[in-house]
Amino acid sequence: MRAAGDVRIEDVPDPSILDPTDAILRVTRACICGSDLWPYASMEPSETGQSMGHEAIGIVEDIGAEVRMLKRGDLVVMPFAISDGTCEFCHQGLQTECVHVAFFGNNGMNGAQAEALRIPYADGTLYKLLVREDDALMPSLLTLADVLGTGHHAAVLAKVAPGTSAAVVGDGAVGLCGVIAAKRLGAEQIIIMGRHEDRLRLAKEFGATDVVSERGEEAVERVHELTGGFGAHSVLECVGLNQSTETAISIARPGGAVGRVGVPQDPMMPGSQAAFYGNITVGGGPAPVRAYIDELLPDILEGRINPGKVFDRNIGLDEVPDGYRAMADRESIKVMVTP
Amino acid sequence: MRAAGDVRIEDVPDPSILDPTDAILRVTRACICGSDLWPYASMEPSETGQSMGHEAIGIVEDIGAEVRMLKRGDLVVMPFAISDGTCEFCHQGLQTECVHVAFFGNNGMNGAQAEALRIPYADGTLYKLLVREDDALMPSLLTLADVLGTGHHAAVLAKVAPGTSAAVVGDGAVGLCGVIAAKRLGAEQIIIMGRHEDRLRLAKEFGATDVVSERGEEAVERVHELTGGFGAHSVLECVGLNQSTETAISIARPGGAVGRVGVPQDPMMPGSQAAFYGNITVGGGPAPVRAYIDELLPDILEGRINPGKVFDRNIGLDEVPDGYRAMADRESIKVMVTP
Repeated sequence: MRAAGDVRIEDVPDPSILDPTDAILRVTRACICGSDLWPYASMEPSETGQSMGHEAIGIVEDIGAEVRMLKRGDLVVMPFAISDGTCEFCHQGLQTECVHVAFFGNNGMNGAQAEALRIPYADGTLYKLLVREDDALMPSLLTLADVLGTGHHAAVLAKVAPGTSAAVVGDGAVGLCGVIAAKRLGAEQIIIMGRHEDRLRLAKEFGATDVVSERGEEAVERVHELTGGFGAHSVLECVGLNQSTETAISIARPGGAVGRVGVPQDPMMPGSQAAFYGNITVGGGPAPVRAYIDELLPDILEGRINPGKVFDRNIGLDEVPDGYRAMADRESIKVMVTP
Repeated sequence: MRAAGDVRIEDVPDPSILDPTDAILRVTRACICGSDLWPYASMEPSETGQSMGHEAIGIVEDIGAEVRMLKRGDLVVMPFAISDGTCEFCHQGLQTECVHVAFFGNNGMNGAQAEALRIPYADGTLYKLLVREDDALMPSLLTLADVLGTGHHAAVLAKVAPGTSAAVVGDGAVGLCGVIAAKRLGAEQIIIMGRHEDRLRLAKEFGATDVVSERGEEAVERVHELTGGFGAHSVLECVGLNQSTETAISIARPGGAVGRVGVPQDPMMPGSQAAFYGNITVGGGPAPVRAYIDELLPDILEGRINPGKVFDRNIGLDEVPDGYRAMADRESIKVMVTP
């Protein structure tokens, strides 16, 4: 990406092992993320550009001398963040707060919308899969790299529990995975908030019980009506804008929780006093998706969830610029890339 | 209070039973709260004025026909908020989110810096004590009406647990009670942040292990130095200003929690992105002190904690205006009023 709206396919030197803990990943599946649309909308022109993409499945093509857990030929999930696997944050399952954390396809780090890329701290970062490369479950497994784990993080921080009501703000791929996660964790009522027919249909298929397509004050009223007047126990904020965050807080029940995974676009958070007077907890952040794979993978392998349905387009590398356009225009929910 | 800085003693009609669930409380101890200093600093002139005070111990002088749990002559704690005791929020121990919640000495409600006041929903609001009116523990018991339970709420929302590090932002009576609460819940390291010698001395007596008197960036650095570079697991925000809230978030360890009980003075919360990227949870609000009395009272009665030490001045009703001045000038930590 060279600037807002300017995504190009460029030939770059092949990645190589720089540190003994590195691996080289040959990408077999990648995708475009809703969060890639932020720079796509606003990136300042850059001479060097930014290699994009932070979600992948691939084959380990080479490893450094100190890589112990992986070997050439392994099929792995590449979560969106680097984690060393050894620091105290990694040990507590919070890999996105690793002392060596960095995000792929961001801030100069190489990205996965590519044929191959270098993976630092490969042992701590990559997650080995025991399925074949052409497995039909590949789209669902690819969501373990970000959107499924991110939706799950929102649900966990929103304290979804059996029998509760959950509201999901945002009908992008993360919001849709939030619906899956809320259902997995036992929410009895799941309200999806959005206005795109195709996405709402998928949300219902994933377990949403109610749809709210209003915005702002009207949306808040509607959710209160649907939840006995008090709001939802759990709110999953999957957008990151001030309006959506304010809505999320306004539809939370007193004593409830908002789990936010939409990347906040403003250093100030609205709804501070509303959250305070409602004793509403606001948590969330970059999801430690690496940690969540252990819990989520069996549900995919055994067919209980099918998050891969968020992909409604599969393209080659050459079509990536058009994939950005399609997602930005809301023509596509989420684009898979098969290099 | 008629306006900022203008507190007067006025004769008003005696309170009387209006609803059958009311009681009349004769105040034996009241006090001035740090939160009373917000209107004392900024209240617009008002013709009717606001009856002040929301913390009291007193004697039930009269009860309405439907009051079942109390009788004339009972000694009770009056928590700062009205709660009906029967709604689902009260049942879950969140009395400050009661469907009938209102705050004494606020928004037209009568206040406790008085000889007597009317108590709506007396059964659900008042907490009966089994000690004598002149008990030497009276100052500590009075803190159950607000500051001790509020400090405890901050510690609970900040997830203080055995062996963790806690930082307390603010050295007012609530912050000092936050130190007591953090110690009760097992924090190993307790950092008090403030700059008033007398308060810091008391904080140490209550269990603070470290003092940080710097502010802003320097304070953040100092706390990081004291906590192995990562920040505190738990941060108790006991001020409510934007600067203190931003500091609270900045000194929390990744994955940590901020429990805020300082009344936020701004609808926008700073540190939104810092909290997000640090996966820091921000919770808190008006403390359900009524619910916490069961847990905190035995520790007072058995002498394990002595929160009454936050009172460093005891005055009569006539001296209340000077009590406000003394607290605003930081001459006094907290003023007790014995009508």
